Amino acid sequence: MGRTYDTISFLSDYGLDDEFVGVVKSVIRGLAPAATVIDITHGVAPYDVRAGALALVRSVEYLAAGVVLAVVDPGVGTDRRAVAVEVGEAGESVLVGPDNGLLAPAVAMVGGALRAAELTNTDFHLPSHGATFAGRDVFAPAAAHLCRGADLAELGELVDPVTLRPAVLPLSSTDAGRVSGEVLWVDRFGNLQLNVGPDEVVHLGERLTVGFGGDKARTARRVRAYAELAPGELGLVVDSSGLLSVA
Amino acid sequence: MGRTYDTISFLSDYGLDDEFVGVVKSVIRGLAPAATVIDITHGVAPYDVRAGALALVRSVEYLAAGVVLAVVDPGVGTDRRAVAVEVGEAGESVLVGPDNGLLAPAVAMVGGALRAAELTNTDFHLPSHGATFAGRDVFAPAAAHLCRGADLAELGELVDPVTLRPAVLPLSSTDAGRVSGEVLWVDRFGNLQLNVGPDEVVHLGERLTVGFGGDKARTARRVRAYAELAPGELGLVVDSSGLLSVA
Amino acid sequence: MGRTYDTISFLSDYGLDDEFVGVVKSVIRGLAPAATVIDITHGVAPYDVRAGALALVRSVEYLAAGVVLAVVDPGVGTDRRAVAVEVGEAGESVLVGPDNGLLAPAVAMVGGALRAAELTNTDFHLPSHGATFAGRDVFAPAAAHLCRGADLAELGELVDPVTLRPAVLPLSSTDAGRVSGEVLWVDRFGNLQLNVGPDEVVHLGERLTVGFGGDKARTARRVRAYAELAPGELGLVVDSSGLLSVA
Repeated sequence: MGRTYDTISFLSDYGLDDEFVGVVKSVIRGLAPAATVIDITHGVAPYDVRAGALALVRSVEYLAAGVVLAVVDPGVGTDRRAVAVEVGEAGESVLVGPDNGLLAPAVAMVGGALRAAELTNTDFHLPSHGATFAGRDVFAPAAAHLCRGADLAELGELVDPVTLRPAVLPLSSTDAGRVSGEVLWVDRFGNLQLNVGPDEVVHLGERLTVGFGGDKARTARRVRAYAELAPGELGLVVDSSGLLSVA
Repeated sequence: MGRTYDTISFLSDYGLDDEFVGVVKSVIRGLAPAATVIDITHGVAPYDVRAGALALVRSVEYLAAGVVLAVVDPGVGTDRRAVAVEVGEAGESVLVGPDNGLLAPAVAMVGGALRAAELTNTDFHLPSHGATFAGRDVFAPAAAHLCRGADLAELGELVDPVTLRPAVLPLSSTDAGRVSGEVLWVDRFGNLQLNVGPDEVVHLGERLTVGFGGDKARTARRVRAYAELAPGELGLVVDSSGLLSVA
Repeated sequence: MGRTYDTISFLSDYGLDDEFVGVVKSVIRGLAPAATVIDITHGVAPYDVRAGALALVRSVEYLAAGVVLAVVDPGVGTDRRAVAVEVGEAGESVLVGPDNGLLAPAVAMVGGALRAAELTNTDFHLPSHGATFAGRDVFAPAAAHLCRGADLAELGELVDPVTLRPAVLPLSSTDAGRVSGEVLWVDRFGNLQLNVGPDEVVHLGERLTVGFGGDKARTARRVRAYAELAPGELGLVVDSSGLLSVA
């Protein structure tokens, strides 16, 4: 028996209007009643793997040690692999989900994979009515069995972590007093997180011209807090992920 | 003292924008601090008893043994009964909610009712400001007291389970190479669950003509997974409940 | 070491589409793994301090003893104070949040503040990337440390509770057979909660004329339950907070 875990951090694109999240948690409750499930978010846009990967990488350094269950899975039922990826200096956490790039940025952020397994052992799956709800039938049971001490090698065959599918995330570019980036995330408060760090614009001064594609451009002021801005004024702030946001 | 329970599975039409769900859980926390509450969903459309009954019956085989608290209650404050229904071979679970058909399909799915009680004993209610929030004042206390070992007969007078109100769910019909069904549920991913099982259409082949009321009809292909479909293509898939869905 | 707590009731305007709520809970889980977090609601409209204060005061009498974490914080990063406010006859609960009026009605409802502290001790903060996510960096750690027995005086300097910022809530007025109030809250079911108690209209009889600003007026009937109303009929009901609602 391997290490046990008592926390499952759970992120998905299931939303909360249907019963998907509740059923996944019920399966976990049945198999690993002592585990606590913490919902990271289930508001990832349906099938938006990149948005899920970004939410996960923004969260990962704050997550409790344990199992991270992440499901944004447009390829459910196809031959995309279902995987568990062990991370941390001594395997403190295991990420469980589809091998479609969703997990990759978070795995990299915490230092890379120690081991990985493909979840091929059907003894650890639920018998299913169809092939469309792997969160319930494959991923939740894997997360629960890991909590109870199952080793990665029991869940399926170990695979070389270098074969895990990487994520495709946009990079910013710098050119003659101009930094080009992309909006990674629009949060509930209307802030636009950019893939640009504060160091990249420090030489451009306190007032910057922000262009949005076409011809439109506006002046933005660098501020420390949203409340320093007048209504309607545009600001650039270092947000809670350490990236620049247009507020 | 009767059997104790440590899990309450909770479904409602309360939504998450107001504090209704939080207040119900706080009442439970005060009365039965050791119980774990698992949210099935609170996104049932307001007062839509049929949608709630369907979400519950889709979930019920996965729920942890214990108390199931379900509240979709357009008749709150009227003389509709509030009930607790014991199910399972040896009373492993108790469903608590209004007697308006919400619980009936789930009760039937797990083998029918052993015993039922009307929640008339006001010693187990909260003193209330008004008659509009039975989830807080009647159902949550009942669920909590059941967890702590109260017997059904303490919560109120036992009633004959055959008097419980049934649900009205649509049936499919078959006629000369044609199966007529109804859409039970549109999920977050845009799939339309039908009240038609895969056996009912197996004789119709791999490509079916799907009509939607009026004159419109399109061809749908039977597939195993959503990802087998081209963008815009219509598919018929056996979904996670074992029913046919139009994807 | 002071009193310990095992429940954190959590209300915010973070919504559930982003990972803010999940990250706050993960921080709590890391610092105080034995604490249970109960979500009151995270659906308060962004930066709407008054709506948050009203949701909190409607809930507070039902909350489990322990820590109440409330974050609706348009002034995050400015010099608004972050505070912890001890309440209850013997300090049974502590409310943690920004000092912007959000906590004040709930504090008053449970009998006023015993002690208050400004959360100035950075030993109890997380190191942060920016100044925009005090829920994660300041309030969640304070709530967790309180659960583990930290005293208010360790979290920062004690301040006189009379200096806490009050909330500005509208009062109803009565004038010649006419009561003027304001809509405090529109709930998921479309009911309009007024800042008018049932005693204020009891002398006006069973049928009242309800005006809405301009010239429009309709007749409303006093009823006990929503279901007593015909479709389209307007009713006045004593709601679950003990206030009048237009149904």
